[in-house]
Amino acid sequence: MLGVNRRALLSVPALLSIPAILRVTSALAQDASNQLPSWNDGPAKQSIIDFVRATTDQASSKFVPPEERIATFDQDGTLWVEHPMYSQMMYCLDRVPILAAQKPPLRDEEPFKTVLSGDEEAIAKLTTPDLERIILTTLTGMTTEEYAAEVKKWLATGKDHRWKRPYTDLTYKPMQEVLSYLRANGFKTFIVTGFGQDFVRVYSDRVYGIPPEQVVGSALAVKYDYAKDGKPLLIKEPKLMLDDNNAGKPEGIHLMIGRRPHAAFGNSTGDRQMLEYTGAGDGARLAMLVLHDDAQREYAYGPAQGLPDTKVGTFTQALYDEAKKDGWTVISMKNDWKRIFSFE
Amino acid sequence: MLGVNRRALLSVPALLSIPAILRVTSALAQDASNQLPSWNDGPAKQSIIDFVRATTDQASSKFVPPEERIATFDQDGTLWVEHPMYSQMMYCLDRVPILAAQKPPLRDEEPFKTVLSGDEEAIAKLTTPDLERIILTTLTGMTTEEYAAEVKKWLATGKDHRWKRPYTDLTYKPMQEVLSYLRANGFKTFIVTGFGQDFVRVYSDRVYGIPPEQVVGSALAVKYDYAKDGKPLLIKEPKLMLDDNNAGKPEGIHLMIGRRPHAAFGNSTGDRQMLEYTGAGDGARLAMLVLHDDAQREYAYGPAQGLPDTKVGTFTQALYDEAKKDGWTVISMKNDWKRIFSFE
Repeated sequence: MLGVNRRALLSVPALLSIPAILRVTSALAQDASNQLPSWNDGPAKQSIIDFVRATTDQASSKFVPPEERIATFDQDGTLWVEHPMYSQMMYCLDRVPILAAQKPPLRDEEPFKTVLSGDEEAIAKLTTPDLERIILTTLTGMTTEEYAAEVKKWLATGKDHRWKRPYTDLTYKPMQEVLSYLRANGFKTFIVTGFGQDFVRVYSDRVYGIPPEQVVGSALAVKYDYAKDGKPLLIKEPKLMLDDNNAGKPEGIHLMIGRRPHAAFGNSTGDRQMLEYTGAGDGARLAMLVLHDDAQREYAYGPAQGLPDTKVGTFTQALYDEAKKDGWTVISMKNDWKRIFSFE
Repeated sequence: MLGVNRRALLSVPALLSIPAILRVTSALAQDASNQLPSWNDGPAKQSIIDFVRATTDQASSKFVPPEERIATFDQDGTLWVEHPMYSQMMYCLDRVPILAAQKPPLRDEEPFKTVLSGDEEAIAKLTTPDLERIILTTLTGMTTEEYAAEVKKWLATGKDHRWKRPYTDLTYKPMQEVLSYLRANGFKTFIVTGFGQDFVRVYSDRVYGIPPEQVVGSALAVKYDYAKDGKPLLIKEPKLMLDDNNAGKPEGIHLMIGRRPHAAFGNSTGDRQMLEYTGAGDGARLAMLVLHDDAQREYAYGPAQGLPDTKVGTFTQALYDEAKKDGWTVISMKNDWKRIFSFE
């Protein structure tokens, strides 16, 4: 009936009536305990609340004008499960048989042959160049629209092996609450992912309330071309344009957002430079790292736990030391999160 | 007093009280004549009004959900004056003496020597590679923050030669009205400029109400590094990362926005592919071209006027023919705009 989007309106605090807006500043900060219900009381939860209070209170020396309230979130391991393998890597592996059916010579070519063998042990041993080759081969040679349609289809049917649920169910409820809490306080939230932005953009609005243009990630080049009927197309090319990992994260933030974030969340060495860049700005800055130390409810991995390194997000001792030195807050999944998932 | 941005709130239709929201759809479309006061009645104004009506009316087969309402605007020649030279090129030329004072050998090196001579005729004859060399030299080797500060300083003092006003005063009032009208109807507005996005981002919010992250433009690479005191920096490098012209416009739109616009505005062959890409989408699409045919109030240039080609935005006969064929609307500055600038 309305020519306006109900969901978008309902998520905007501005929709509140005028008197309600007058109460917003104090009410929101004080209601933090209600807005972060999946967090246990402790230094991690407190640092989020303190940051929001300081940046939204005009009487505070750390007040940040709303148009500068930028918060960035790594995705894999920070907003959703990354273990034992990144979801987008699962997608690429699942694409190999489809591609091999279209191009039979791939069946005898490594690393595709190994993937097709189904030998999980051998697949787990594929090297980084092998995986990169699989990524470049499975994500390219199609239009951007065909790719988005493929990802959408895969997400609707693919299921995680442990919880037997769609991958998009495996987001962390406490982090969803942080996204909402920051947005309710005037922050614009962005995903800054080391994996492909075209992948995350397919579901970012539905899953995180983050529109596609607020997803920064690694990006393959696209090439403008015309179909036989003259219709313009964008073709995904096997050429990495933006490697949004490590130093590439602040570089990507500058390219796509153009401003230094006031808050950043990560979980691995790939997020180090984003957190450094965020933390080094003037005034109130919040830099947080999710530590995977809950083997029972999720996973425990990374050398900080005395566990062997894995292919996914590495939380090294050096990163832990830098966090302590620079005043970043480490979030312990085990101690700081009352609940991990919405479905529990 | 409030921990919220007054200006941001006031620009959001959602701030209206609930009963007002119920009236929004019909009221806004009907009030178009009030919202586009600098436009003369005619096909150009009508096509904008018709497009907004169709895309915001849920009863229309061309209704577009608010989250998909993306509108892109070229800047130079579309939102503000580009003749006789792009403002950012003026900035680069003005930087040459400053740079030569820091690096004296530049004084004897072309094309810097010509720029320093002040010989306007010779400067006007500089080739595209000359200009590119000047751009790469004057915009790099500093941090992103130093660059933004320099641009801000230049904008505060630099004045256009004809109107003797700051460059940022030279935006077209009718286009400012289109930006506001689209935003009032739920569209997210983006600048897609062939020139540098770092330049436009310095003033986009103040001048157009468009935040930095909604400015897509040509971009030099930045390199993450550390200052001597260990503080992280981003250094502007002399390496073109994104050439946001011609086919680079839809490619840049995909990279930075991730969706096909429903409306696009340009004024030259550099905007052709953006308009093709926009126009080729399903449902209601609006593609418009500003024609500079008003020598008295602004400028008249481009072969469509039987005038010699210039270094700035070229509106060729071929572009004009494509516009007619594809149903794009040509805006005649002379006939469609009642007023050109706010200061008049």
